[in-house]
Order: sequence, then structure tokens, then C-alpha cells
Amino acid sequence: MNSENFSLSEKIVSSSYVRQGSQARRGHEQLIRVLLEQGKCPEEGWSESTIELFLNELAVMDSNNFLGNCGVGEREGRVASGLVARRHYRLIHGIGRSGDIAAVQPKAAGSSLLNKLTNSVVLDIIRQSGVRSASCCFVVPMATGMSLTLCFLTLRHRRPGARYILWPRIDQKSCFKAMVTAGFEPIVIENILEGDELRTDLDTVQKKIDELGAENILCVHSTTSCFAPRVPDRLEELAVICAKHDIPHVVNNAYGVQSSKCMHLIQQGARVGRIDAFVQSLDKNFLVPVGGAIIAGFDEGFVKEISKMYPGRASASPSLDVLITLLTLGASGYRKLLSERKEMYNHLAHELSTLAQQHGERLLHTPHNPISMAMSLSGLQAHSDQAVTQLGSMLFTRQVSGARVVPLGVEQMVSGQLFRGFMSHAEAYPCPYLNAASAVGIARGDVDLCMKRLDKCVRSLRKSAAPHSTEDTAPPAPPEEQDTAA
Amino acid sequence: MNSENFSLSEKIVSSSYVRQGSQARRGHEQLIRVLLEQGKCPEEGWSESTIELFLNELAVMDSNNFLGNCGVGEREGRVASGLVARRHYRLIHGIGRSGDIAAVQPKAAGSSLLNKLTNSVVLDIIRQSGVRSASCCFVVPMATGMSLTLCFLTLRHRRPGARYILWPRIDQKSCFKAMVTAGFEPIVIENILEGDELRTDLDTVQKKIDELGAENILCVHSTTSCFAPRVPDRLEELAVICAKHDIPHVVNNAYGVQSSKCMHLIQQGARVGRIDAFVQSLDKNFLVPVGGAIIAGFDEGFVKEISKMYPGRASASPSLDVLITLLTLGASGYRKLLSERKEMYNHLAHELSTLAQQHGERLLHTPHNPISMAMSLSGLQAHSDQAVTQLGSMLFTRQVSGARVVPLGVEQMVSGQLFRGFMSHAEAYPCPYLNAASAVGIARGDVDLCMKRLDKCVRSLRKSAAPHSTEDTAPPAPPEEQDTAA
Amino acid sequence: MNSENFSLSEKIVSSSYVRQGSQARRGHEQLIRVLLEQGKCPEEGWSESTIELFLNELAVMDSNNFLGNCGVGEREGRVASGLVARRHYRLIHGIGRSGDIAAVQPKAAGSSLLNKLTNSVVLDIIRQSGVRSASCCFVVPMATGMSLTLCFLTLRHRRPGARYILWPRIDQKSCFKAMVTAGFEPIVIENILEGDELRTDLDTVQKKIDELGAENILCVHSTTSCFAPRVPDRLEELAVICAKHDIPHVVNNAYGVQSSKCMHLIQQGARVGRIDAFVQSLDKNFLVPVGGAIIAGFDEGFVKEISKMYPGRASASPSLDVLITLLTLGASGYRKLLSERKEMYNHLAHELSTLAQQHGERLLHTPHNPISMAMSLSGLQAHSDQAVTQLGSMLFTRQVSGARVVPLGVEQMVSGQLFRGFMSHAEAYPCPYLNAASAVGIARGDVDLCMKRLDKCVRSLRKSAAPHSTEDTAPPAPPEEQDTAA
Amino acid sequence: MNSENFSLSEKIVSSSYVRQGSQARRGHEQLIRVLLEQGKCPEEGWSESTIELFLNELAVMDSNNFLGNCGVGEREGRVASGLVARRHYRLIHGIGRSGDIAAVQPKAAGSSLLNKLTNSVVLDIIRQSGVRSASCCFVVPMATGMSLTLCFLTLRHRRPGARYILWPRIDQKSCFKAMVTAGFEPIVIENILEGDELRTDLDTVQKKIDELGAENILCVHSTTSCFAPRVPDRLEELAVICAKHDIPHVVNNAYGVQSSKCMHLIQQGARVGRIDAFVQSLDKNFLVPVGGAIIAGFDEGFVKEISKMYPGRASASPSLDVLITLLTLGASGYRKLLSERKEMYNHLAHELSTLAQQHGERLLHTPHNPISMAMSLSGLQAHSDQAVTQLGSMLFTRQVSGARVVPLGVEQMVSGQLFRGFMSHAEAYPCPYLNAASAVGIARGDVDLCMKRLDKCVRSLRKSAAPHSTEDTAPPAPPEEQDTAA
Repeated sequence: MNSENFSLSEKIVSSSYVRQGSQARRGHEQLIRVLLEQGKCPEEGWSESTIELFLNELAVMDSNNFLGNCGVGEREGRVASGLVARRHYRLIHGIGRSGDIAAVQPKAAGSSLLNKLTNSVVLDIIRQSGVRSASCCFVVPMATGMSLTLCFLTLRHRRPGARYILWPRIDQKSCFKAMVTAGFEPIVIENILEGDELRTDLDTVQKKIDELGAENILCVHSTTSCFAPRVPDRLEELAVICAKHDIPHVVNNAYGVQSSKCMHLIQQGARVGRIDAFVQSLDKNFLVPVGGAIIAGFDEGFVKEISKMYPGRASASPSLDVLITLLTLGASGYRKLLSERKEMYNHLAHELSTLAQQHGERLLHTPHNPISMAMSLSGLQAHSDQAVTQLGSMLFTRQVSGARVVPLGVEQMVSGQLFRGFMSHAEAYPCPYLNAASAVGIARGDVDLCMKRLDKCVRSLRKSAAPHSTEDTAPPAPPEEQDTAA
Repeated sequence: MNSENFSLSEKIVSSSYVRQGSQARRGHEQLIRVLLEQGKCPEEGWSESTIELFLNELAVMDSNNFLGNCGVGEREGRVASGLVARRHYRLIHGIGRSGDIAAVQPKAAGSSLLNKLTNSVVLDIIRQSGVRSASCCFVVPMATGMSLTLCFLTLRHRRPGARYILWPRIDQKSCFKAMVTAGFEPIVIENILEGDELRTDLDTVQKKIDELGAENILCVHSTTSCFAPRVPDRLEELAVICAKHDIPHVVNNAYGVQSSKCMHLIQQGARVGRIDAFVQSLDKNFLVPVGGAIIAGFDEGFVKEISKMYPGRASASPSLDVLITLLTLGASGYRKLLSERKEMYNHLAHELSTLAQQHGERLLHTPHNPISMAMSLSGLQAHSDQAVTQLGSMLFTRQVSGARVVPLGVEQMVSGQLFRGFMSHAEAYPCPYLNAASAVGIARGDVDLCMKRLDKCVRSLRKSAAPHSTEDTAPPAPPEEQDTAA
Repeated sequence: MNSENFSLSEKIVSSSYVRQGSQARRGHEQLIRVLLEQGKCPEEGWSESTIELFLNELAVMDSNNFLGNCGVGEREGRVASGLVARRHYRLIHGIGRSGDIAAVQPKAAGSSLLNKLTNSVVLDIIRQSGVRSASCCFVVPMATGMSLTLCFLTLRHRRPGARYILWPRIDQKSCFKAMVTAGFEPIVIENILEGDELRTDLDTVQKKIDELGAENILCVHSTTSCFAPRVPDRLEELAVICAKHDIPHVVNNAYGVQSSKCMHLIQQGARVGRIDAFVQSLDKNFLVPVGGAIIAGFDEGFVKEISKMYPGRASASPSLDVLITLLTLGASGYRKLLSERKEMYNHLAHELSTLAQQHGERLLHTPHNPISMAMSLSGLQAHSDQAVTQLGSMLFTRQVSGARVVPLGVEQMVSGQLFRGFMSHAEAYPCPYLNAASAVGIARGDVDLCMKRLDKCVRSLRKSAAPHSTEDTAPPAPPEEQDTAA
Repeated sequence: MNSENFSLSEKIVSSSYVRQGSQARRGHEQLIRVLLEQGKCPEEGWSESTIELFLNELAVMDSNNFLGNCGVGEREGRVASGLVARRHYRLIHGIGRSGDIAAVQPKAAGSSLLNKLTNSVVLDIIRQSGVRSASCCFVVPMATGMSLTLCFLTLRHRRPGARYILWPRIDQKSCFKAMVTAGFEPIVIENILEGDELRTDLDTVQKKIDELGAENILCVHSTTSCFAPRVPDRLEELAVICAKHDIPHVVNNAYGVQSSKCMHLIQQGARVGRIDAFVQSLDKNFLVPVGGAIIAGFDEGFVKEISKMYPGRASASPSLDVLITLLTLGASGYRKLLSERKEMYNHLAHELSTLAQQHGERLLHTPHNPISMAMSLSGLQAHSDQAVTQLGSMLFTRQVSGARVVPLGVEQMVSGQLFRGFMSHAEAYPCPYLNAASAVGIARGDVDLCMKRLDKCVRSLRKSAAPHSTEDTAPPAPPEEQDTAA
């Protein structure tokens, strides 16, 4: 209420109480003021009531909520269903304009503010999470894969003659398709086995550049977060190579914001070499629904170029989700989540290692992977050929989600390319294994329950040389893909 | 509640009342059954309570809502904010898999059902709206422009050598950028003036094909819904040409679902010639928030190919919105909206024509445009050079949205291409004009209020040869773009 | 947002758009201003977004929502469940103080405003609905019966020696219990049969006053809205008698606000004689959930005395519901509902009369009852003894609610008093009958569907002299009570 | 969804995924089954999604949500505003029937279930909280005071000749008014000072019984939870006296459920003597909005008699709130809240004691009061006459709520009775003091912030012999009443 309405209220209830109420209102407005002024994630999270107040304020600034508006255009932000209007807080106009997804809309000052603030708050968090020198970013309502595609399409205009993308292998469909969809030919760089870890083969990268010619290479497309025993790419070295050959470098940082190691790699890469853009998933890093990504970079001009490549307006829904979430958590709440994740990583590693030993397996030694780990299943496979895949179905049936079983020798065609040893990031990894990850939001209960069920399943499989129980034959093993980017 | 719980309830309250309650529950389930069985938009709309019951049922089928789930993956559908969880009805996993946006997710049976049903219900409505022989469609959480880009990227794999897209000019940035972003060179076909109407220049299309070679042309990219005095492209003839030369044909049907004429054009084009895909906006046709589109076609194989090009999962938000909306309206409710729109079109035309006469202007004669119309502003321009653009700002300030003023002689660069006479779809349209449209959801009040304000503005501008009042100089005239696709 | 925040916003998005947004905000505030200033129901209903904005504004004025509050009292408005907090818009402190349900709470300026405004808006509607000279009223979170009890308890303090309440019979339990619960002895005045109507026996009222002594009579307790063939009491004559003998007069106007006739009776009664208070249900008149009532009167002092009798704070929920509802409808929306009700009354009367004739029954002639009507069931009873009660169960099973069957000769004890001919308001009404009412919110579909099902039921009962089908024996006929006050 | 719909879903998405979804649904249903079967508060809290599923299930059982219902009654559960319908989960019919607030409604099986289950779950919690032998209770949508009135009105029918209620003094308006409103004459029993504590004067109670005659006494009305230095009444001894003289005994247990000591007193009183009913507030014990109470007792017959005294239906809103809250918390969650409260009590006592010493005051020694405590303000008063009341305003202005300042010598009329030394429960307590309480839901932050602000205020007051700063003179000291029952 404005001051006039507060004055009127004083005639109805005691003025000292109203004055206190009006002062309390200023408390909320003060939080909003700081946000508008600084464009940063507030250190302490906001209450639901401040957030809803703020969103309602934004909504009344959009023309579809003007009480006296009359619309004779073809897009007036009308909504037929009250359920739909409410779930979007009546913010209907989306973000961006036909020219640029980051542009301001005349009809929707509130939605435009939402868009700008979200990008600004998200940039703040990316910096706080380790990429201190990131200069610009924007939220896009597409998953990581399609966002990578957009980056590649933008680069095409800078390098019209380039046809190839150098890509250290990571077995996940959408990041591969991102390149194919953009119309490029991925050059798969097989990983090198170092101990248990699969790491970037820098020599082959260099060799391929020489072979194909730098000017024919659109970019190097590297990856941070990934399933063990693959580990984050050697970003620094790749960045140096890119700088040397003047080749753009796009990093798939799908769920890497949650790991200080991944973020550090990007920061270092950009410092010593070249990184043009890095792309991360909203849902995997910020505990929001699937469907959004952040495209970030170090050169504001290039990031804006990408945002201008998106033809047309876009859904504000992912921006709204991440803004609500970050305002709710505050920077301190997000840091707390990240530190809990780290703690759970250690707990998971300890538990999985213990369990492995009990069953004659071992936790693979992958110290460079800060999120995912793997337990060998060599013994289980020795026991029975089918046991490894059976383990997958059994875990699915027992509501253990995300524990991915990787058998040997899977072959898979993806967009016309045959991958041998698919899912394991290598043509012939030495042993089958099971993945587990400690991702942001994981709870101790997740780990403990998973260990208990896993133990039971392995135990039961090892007992029976015979085919496993009927219950578990029924469900077709759902091939849990590795979602580095999705 | 299941039957066991109903039985237990009978011990607590009278069994005859419980039995009636359980019978009533079956009423809701019956509606759901018909939807699942037929996959069609229900004839009569559902109540909010049936819809919410249904969405809650879907949500409990997703693993993030399993009471006994434990997750050790990198994407577990966790949500940090209760506000966010609730606004998505706890459907967090999005739609699709990394391989295919239309694929089923093992972790999310409910979201998968939502996705499949939405596509099926939307297809039903597209057929009912006039494209009877459409065979397949899917909702994509991108606006029309980016969806067109996806179609072009898919075609690239079929026609690797093609570089050009033939495009009858329509002055709207995002559909132009859609081609550039996909990496193609648009060949702009200027329109022909027939009476007041701007229509497709078929001869030039044919000439360009001969000139460039059919095999070098990725596709013809035509448009239905557009701002008058441009009218929908001659789809039948274009489709025949495409068929003859074996050139793909993609139609931008941005807000054409609401018009039986536009839909009829597509149906006829596909019958007599070739249309590979037609793309329409969700928000402009179905009164939902900005950010989704429908990609539809006649060949299931090709449409699936497009859906497989989308790398990674995607936001379920636009699908959820359109499903809620269509279940709320029912097919009959949607038909009613369309017929009200038609009625308002006539009302608007009548009112605008009357107003035009009073001010010495005229309603341009554009009978082929079923949605948009235009009133000349020749007199106003004669009166004062600035008056035409001033009219735009004045209407904006007076909360008339969507009434677009088009002055003469605007030049605009879009992605490196210069457009003369931008906004008017022609290098030199004979007169400046004002657009108004009767789009789905428009109310009589919109028309009447707009006429009243417009009348006042024109009157005031004609009175003063002198610069207009201070109030209206302040706001920079917001260049309302033509959002054929956005 | 305050002006400072708007200014900051102008640095983020274009200032002319922000200015328009801020202007739009003033539109909402203007509506709130008028409400605060005049305390009247707005003529036109508010949008949901204005209402929610307003409720959020009220909520931030309550101490439980102060960002810097610390509480060390025993009642701090804390809420454990987010679901609960949200459904009350975070207005937790209820209304009133321990001294007075109408008092202002220091801790809750927002809730206090809500309470005051609700009472003021409701008074406006009561006046507009016909009781123009009502001077004061308040909403109380108790149903009509308990509210009547509160009135009687208040009167006790004015008339400590009085033991009796004169009560023209109306067969509904809660208004009878209202007197017994308050500790008084109801003197039942049997009604007089005039034509088909049951009307107040004024002579007996007078006789009882003479017999018991005016000073021993707490009050006359009369009724307006009731089930036909009883009709509203002769309020004017009763009011004159009360004035003459200086006896208080309390009117049970349970669902009478919706009828201009009932309201006119009260207005007239107060003009020519004495009415101390009249009580009406919130749910039955204003389409809100069960549980609130309005206590109104002509002497502000007496109404305040009643409000001070309520010991302790009270739920704000019914006040919130009725305020939301009246702001949504606006005075014009409420008037529209009332006129539709009247129209449906005529429709129902016509349909029921036609149906009656087809089955050899007749619509009882009860012109003084503006809401309820009755169709005789004489023929049905002649046909079979059980058929009348069977009709009741059959209608219940067929989801016809509110159509009450009244057989002859029911005896019922209520709080120690035996009522012969219970449900019919008379010891021996000439015939059994079926009631139907046209109450506010009724739709044409209700009437038509009811007629169809009723016709089928009567037809089927008349066909079979034999016991009715198994289906209908199962459910125990639910004795639908007459809810004059509930 | 029922099994038929699950089968249909299997045709749309993979059957193994659907099967898992359907199995997950059974998880929710299983929780509901246990609730229906046992009627107890679940040990572990439910997720929001289970709760909403359950409430939606209840709602579809009510006739206003029947898809095929037609209504021709005067009360059909229609709702005009969507906001209102949703916030009540479409449960509109309230609870009870005109005969009995605990009765089942034919039109509303769902609401009836809600009512029964709430009463049952609440009884479970009362037993678990210490009154193991409670046999029956019900939630009533009235605050504690009005609920006490209802108890007294019920007793009147058992003891028609009784006029007096014996009431050990407690300075809170609504519990006093509860007796006056019911039409009885309270006999105030002044408390005895024992050390710092004010305790029940049993001798005077006995003397008054002898003096007035047991048969003329309606009941003894005692109190547990109260503001220090008053402590809970000597319930055991009072109960024994009541039993001896056959006098009913009603206990005001306003916020006593949260204290095992208060609950133990009631349990013991009932074991060794007589307690007919004990009444507690919903909001103060269960963190829900103001407006509900629980009436409980040991004799099912008597409790039912009370429930039958409530004339008419009633709001389901308080029942809904407490049910949602207890299902959310679970029994374990509620126990946790209680144990945190106890811990905070110790923390508060320690902090307040330390602060007192620093300012030359002391924490009064009131070991029998488990919730409230008091710090003397003797030094402050010695310093300046006005300082004590100024302290009250200063705390209010600084958003410290619930810290009540009690000066000496206040006189107050309540319903015609003069109380000397009002607020202090005694005509002449030795010193002024400040109250603070550790009530359920209190957080460490509340205590610490309060101490900080209190320290500042006292310090500033002691510094200035002169009148305090302008800022604090403005607001009128809001007389924070002692809300033992409200």
C-alpha cells in the first residue's frame, strides 16, 4: 500500500499499529531495493512472503495485468485458465523480444526486470562458485544440449568455413547430438586410461588440429562434470592449445557449478588460455525443474551474440524457478548445500568402498572426479554373465535411482556414429562397474538407503548362480543414460 | 483412495455416504479413462478439481515423489523451493530423454504420460481446427522462431548441400533470424501489391528456383498469419511448386490455428502439393504464457526426425500449460473462443472503418487476412510529419496495446540484411497505417475501449499542428514489432 | 514497490516502461484507497490479482510477518505448516481481542483492518439488499444457531429475570437448540394454516405474553427464510407487539439476505416496531464455506454489547472468505446473482408445477415464501405407504441434493421437547410433500436435471406397487433436515 | 488413478515404468490406510504431496464436487470465488449437523471424515502429551473462552439451580467473560503468595463451598498455563475437593498441551479426583491460526453432551488446519517441537537471569510455571515512575512481541467486576515485572534478539532520568493482555 492508503488505514485501526505495519513493509522493500541496486544474490534467503510480494509487484507491471488495458494485438498475454495464470504469478509475456532473448519488452516491464535480475543474480552465483572472472551470462529455457547447439550455431557465423568440432569422448547422447544438430562433424578424441581414470588425450587433440587445420575446426568442445571413471577434461591444457591455434573453446559444465573443482578448472582455463563459453544446467545445479541452462562467458560481446541468435521470445519459467530458488536459499543457503554435498561425497565414498570390499570389489580410484564415483563389478561378472545387467533392474525396482550399472561391450549408434564400449567413455574399459554420485541436494538418507539396498541386491545375485527371482526379470532394465548434458 | 480405504472409511462415517463419495470419485476417473483411451481433447471442459486430481496422480508416478526413493544420480528431480515444487505440481523431471524430446523417461512415468497426452490432445485440436490430415505433432518448449530453426537444422541432414531458403518477405525479426541462426542464407521474395493487399510473388519464387537450382534450396519457408495489409501466402501454389521441384516446404503458422482460413490453406497445400512441417505458437493460439510451439506435419517419420534432433531433455512447463488449458476449455470451449474471435473481427472491422471515415482515412481492403486489419494514416501524415509516430506513443501511454503504427520509409538491419520499408512487408507501401487484430481471447471491451482512445488520440493530433502535449513526448515510442513468430 | 524501487528499476529496464508499470500499480492502489475510504463493497468486482495484492499487503502488517520480529509471548502467530500459512495468506492472528471480537489487535494491524473492513463491507451489502436502516453488524465465526445463542446470552444481562423465549414454530433443530443452549425455555407457538401456507399465530403470541408476563420473556424469536409451506413470520406485527410490551425481538434471517422480501420484512419491522438483532448465515447468502454468520441490528450500542460478549479472539477465516467473495463479485455481481436466483425461482415453480400436474399432484400455493416451494405427494402416498420415504432415498442416490421429502406423522424429540409432525412445522399438515428451493447460486442446469430425475423417480415408484428396486433399498434414507439456521 | 487407468497408461508409456508409478501410489495410500484404520497421528510426518492427495480425495467425496450433482436446497456448498474454493481444498460443507457438531453429514462424506479423523488424531496427541486417560475430545471452531462458555452452558442443564462458579483468579479477560457470558456469577478466589509464586488458595475454595452450598455452585473453573509469577492451579487438590462435594470441574488448559507438567496435572487430577472437561487452544499449542479449541474429557457421555449443545454446523477451517499440521509434523515432529521448547525455556531463563543481574534486577523464582517467567523491574521503577510503562512501548516499537510489562497498581473493570492489581493476578504483588515465555515454536533467535533489545532498552531508560527519547513517546503503550484463554 502507498502512503495515502496507510494514512487511511490509520483512521480504521490505531495509527501506531498501522505505522508499525508500514515500517514492516519497508523491511521487505528494503530487501528488494538491495536486489535492484546490486543485482546480486542476497546473502541471506528471503521469506516466502517477501518473494511472493516481489513477484506480485513484478506482475502488476506487465500490461496483461493493467486494469485499464485494451489489447488489439496478436499477443496480449491473455490466459484462459486460472490455474495457469496463478502458477506463473500472472507473468505471461515470457522473456526477450523477437530480436534478442535478453531484450526488454515494452509490454512487460515486470517480466523484463525478472529476466535481467535473474541473469544478474545467476552471474553473481557463478562468480561466487569459482569462476570469478566470468563477465556475462544468461538463462535460456533450453536444456544443456540445445544450449550448446546455440553456441555452435553462433560460432558458425564467426567461422563460416569450419566443419569440425574436436570432442574428447564422453558417453552421453545429448552433448554428441548438440554438435550433429548444429550441422557439424564431431571428431571423437578417445580418452587415455591413467590408473583407473579416463583422461583427456591432449596429444591426439593436437594431432587432429594439425591434421584438419585449425581454420576448419569450429571449436573444441570439452567437458567438466562427468561420470567416473572419466574425469573432467584437462581444461587448462586444452585452453592453452585453443589460444595458441585461435580455436574457440566451449565447455560443457553440465552439473559442474556445484563443484568448486570444476569451477576452478574453468577459471584457470580462461586465465591461462581460451574459453569462449561454458554451459551449465539449471536443474542439476540449482534444484529446479528440468529445462533451463545458463550460457556464460568471459567476453560480454560474444555472450550477447549468442543471446541474439535465439530467434524470438522464450519461456520465463526456468528463469522464474531459478530466481525464486536463489532468493529462497540466499548465497549462504546455496553455499551450505554445496558443502553438504561435499560431505556426502566423502560419506558415499567411504560407504561404497566398505561395501565393495565386503563383496570382493573395489572403489575405483578416481580422485579427479569430484562428484561421481564407481565401484567395480568384476567379481559379479565373473559369477554370472547376466548378473551385472540384472543388478541394474533390481536397483530400479527397489527405487534406487541414479545408480547406473555399466556392463562391458555395449555398442550404440548415436546420430550415425558407432560407439564401442558405450556408457564407459572408452572402447574397452578394464571392468564393468556401478556409478553413484553425490549431487547437490543429496541427503544422508539417500546414501544409507542406497547402500542397504545395493548390499542386499549384490548379496542375492552372488548367492544364486541360477537366474534371479521372477520379480526382477519382469521390468526391462531401463538403460539409465549418463546425463552429462541433458 | 483405493477400495480398501473406502471400506475403512465406511467404519468411520455412514457407509451409504461413503459409497456415494466413492461413486463420485469414479466420475472423475471416468473422464481420465476416456482421455487415456482416446488421447483426444474432451468435448466438454473439466472442472479444476478433476484437473488437479489428474495432475496429482501424474506427479505421484514420478520417482522424485516416491516415498521410498533414494537417489544417487546427478539428476534426481530434487527441488529446493516449495514455491517452485508446487507451481509445477511436483512434476520436475521435464520431458524427453537425451536422445529424443518425445521419449519416455524411466524415472518419470507421470511426466512421460503428460508429454504423450499433451501431444496427442494438441494434435486432435489441430485436426479439429482444419488440418484434418495432420498425422503427428509435438510441443516444444521453444518459441516459434527457434522451432523453425530446429526444422531447418533437421532438413540440413536430408539436404546436406543446400544453402538457401526461399522466403516470401514478412517483416518480423525472429522468423528471419530463424533461418540465419540455422546457418542458411534467406532469399527474400518481395511481395506483390494487389489492391491494398501484399501477396506472394509466385513468379519470382519460380525464377529463383531456376536460378539457384532446386538442390541448393533447403526449403521454401512460407507464412500464414501476418499483419495486414500482407495476407497469408499462396500456400497451395507454393506447395505445388515445392512438390514439383522436390523442395521441402516449412510453414510458419504462428497464430494461424485460431483462424479456419489459415488452417484450411495448410490442409489444402498438403493435399495438392507438399508441406513438410508447419509450426505454430502455443501462447498466441492457446492463451498460455509465451515460450512454447507446436511442430506438426503430415509425415510421421519426418516429424519424429525433428523431435530427435532436439538434444536433451526439455521443460515440461509449456506442455503442462497447454494441457491444463485444453482440459479446462474442452473442445467446445475452444471452438467457442474461436467463434467469438471471428465475431470480434467483424465488430473491429466495422468500428475501425467507421472511425476511419470520420477522420478522412479508410480501412484498407484486405479480405484475405482473417485476423489483422489496417487503417490508413495518410491524412494524419499529411497533417504533420511526426504525427504518425506520435500516435504510436500516445496509444502506448494510454494502455492501448497491440495497435501498431507503421510509418513509411523505415530502414532496418536484421542479421546483416537491410530491409527498406521495414514493418510494412514491402519496400514502398503506398501509405502509412495502423494495425489492429482480432486475436483469440479478445473481448468486446478491448475493441470498444481501443476505438474510444484511438479516436481521442487522432482527434488531438489533428487539432494541433504544433508538437503534441508534453505528456506524450516523454516516452520513447516503443517500436512494437510484428510478431508473426516470436 | 515504493518509488525508490521504481527508480532503481528504471536503471535496469527502460524508464518509460517502468513508469507505465508504476502507473498501473496505482490503478490497483486506487481501488484499495476507495475501499479504505468508503468502507463499501466496490460496485465492480476486483480482479484476483488486486485481491491477492491487497491480502498480501495486509499480511505484511501483522507482526508474525515482520522480518525483524522476535517473539517471547505465548501466542506469536507462528505456523508449523506452509500449507496452512499459505491458505490463510499468512494472516494468522485471527480477529478481536480477549475483550471484544471487534477490537483491534496491537500485534496484527493487517488482520484488524481485515476485520473492520469486512464488517463494513458486509453492512453495506445488507443495506443495499433492503435493510437500509441497519446501523451496525459484525461477522462472527459461528453458524447461525450459535450466533443466536450469543444474542440470547447478551439479552440475559439486560433482562436477568426472564426465562422464556416466544418462538413461532419452525422445524429445524439448531434454532430450537440455540435457545435451549442459552438456558432458556422456548415457548412454541404453533403456526396457523392459511390456504396452503403456515403462518404466524399472532393471537397466541399475544396470549402467551399476557399469560407469562412480558418481564419474564427474554425475547420473541422469529424467522424469515424457511421451507414452504411455512412462510416468513409476520414480522411487522410481531415487531409492533414487541415494541408495545417492551420485549426484545431477535430475527433468524438465516438465508434471507438473498431475498428482497425477507429483507423488506426486517426493514419494515424495525420501522414500525422493534427488532433488536437479526442474524444471517454467511454460507447460505454469500456462497462461502459453512461456519460464519452476521449479527446485525439497528442500535449500535446493542450490537457492540453482543460483540463484547464473545469471550476471546476468533477465527478470521469466515471474514476472509466473505471479504474475498464480495470484492470478487462487487455489488453489481452480487445483485446479478440475486436476480438470477429470482428468475430461477420462477423457472423452478413453473417446472415443478408442470411435473406435479403430470403426476396428479400440485404445487402448493405459498406466495409468501420467496425461496422455497413444495409439491404435494398425496397421490404417491395413496399409491403406497412407503413410496414417499422411498422417493427421498432415490433422489439422494441419484445425486439430487436439497430436494427434501416430508412424510406425514414424523415424531421427533429435540432437546427434550417432542415435535409432532416434525419437518412440516405443524402437528398435522394436510399432505406429505416434497420441497425444492431456488437459492443463490442455483443454475438452470440444477433445475432441469432435478426435474428430469424427479420425474423418473416418481414414475418408477408409481409403476411398482411392489417394493422398489434393490438399488434404492440399500441406502438409508438420509433425513435431510430443514436448515433454516445451521 | 484406478487400476483400469493404470492399464491404459501402460499402452502409452512403458508398462514397467507405469507399474512402478502405480506401486508408488500405493505408498501414499498405505499411509492413508493406516490413518483410517488407527485414527492416530502418524509417527512420521507426511509429505505435502501425500497430504494434498488425501485432501483432494476427501473433497471429491463431498456433494458439491460431484460432477453430476444437481442441487435444489438452500445450502449446496456453492462457492462464488475460486480463491475461496481453493484455499479450503473445495471442502465447503463445514462440520457437523444442526443437531450435533460431531455428527456426520449426508451431503459431505469427505468433510465428515475430516472431522472424525481430526478429533481422533487430536485425542491421540492429547494422550501422548500426558493425559493418557482422556477418553474423548472434539475440535470446535471457537477460541478457548467461548469453548469454556459452551461447557458452562452444558453444565447448566445438569445443575439448573446453580448460579456460581468458583474461580481462582487469573488476570485475563476472556476466561472471566466466559463465565459471565454464560450467565453465571464468578466467585473470585484470590491467590496466595508463596515465595515469588502466586498459588491456589485451597482453604478459601473450601470455605466458599461451605458458604454458598455445593448445589449452588455450577463448577470450579481452574487454570493450568498462565503468566508467571502465577503458577498452574493445584489441580489435584481442587479435583479432590470437587469429587468430595460432587461439584463439576472445568480446567482452562489454554496453552498447556505443550507442557508435560500441565498435562500431568490434569492426568493426576482426573485420577485422584474429578475433572469434567479441559479446554485448550489450537493456535497456542499447535501452531495454527487463531480460532479453534479442543474440548476434552474423561467421560465420553459428557463430552458428547457438550458437542450436542453447539447449535448448528460449524467451520471446518480450524479442524483442517490442525489436521494438516499434525500430519505434516507427525507425532515425532510434535515431540521434537516440545522438547525444543523446553530447551529454549532453560535458555531463556538463563539469559534473562543474567540480564537481570546486570541491571540489579532478578528473575523471580517460579519453578512451578513451566512456560512463563518474570524478571523484576523494581530497580527501574525506583529510577523513574514512568520507566516501567515506557519499557513496554519501547519493546513494542522495537518489534519485541509478547514481552509483557506489568506495572503495579493497575485497576480494571471487566464485565462489571473491579480487579485491583490487574495483570498481576493479585491485588498487591510486591514488585513490577516483565514477562517472557518459552512457547512452542520459539527459536533461539527469538530469545537472543529479545535479550539484546531488552538490554538496550533498560540501559537507555536507566541512563536517562529525563523522559525517554521522542521516538518512544509517540506510540501508545499497547496493553498486551495476558492471554491465558483467548
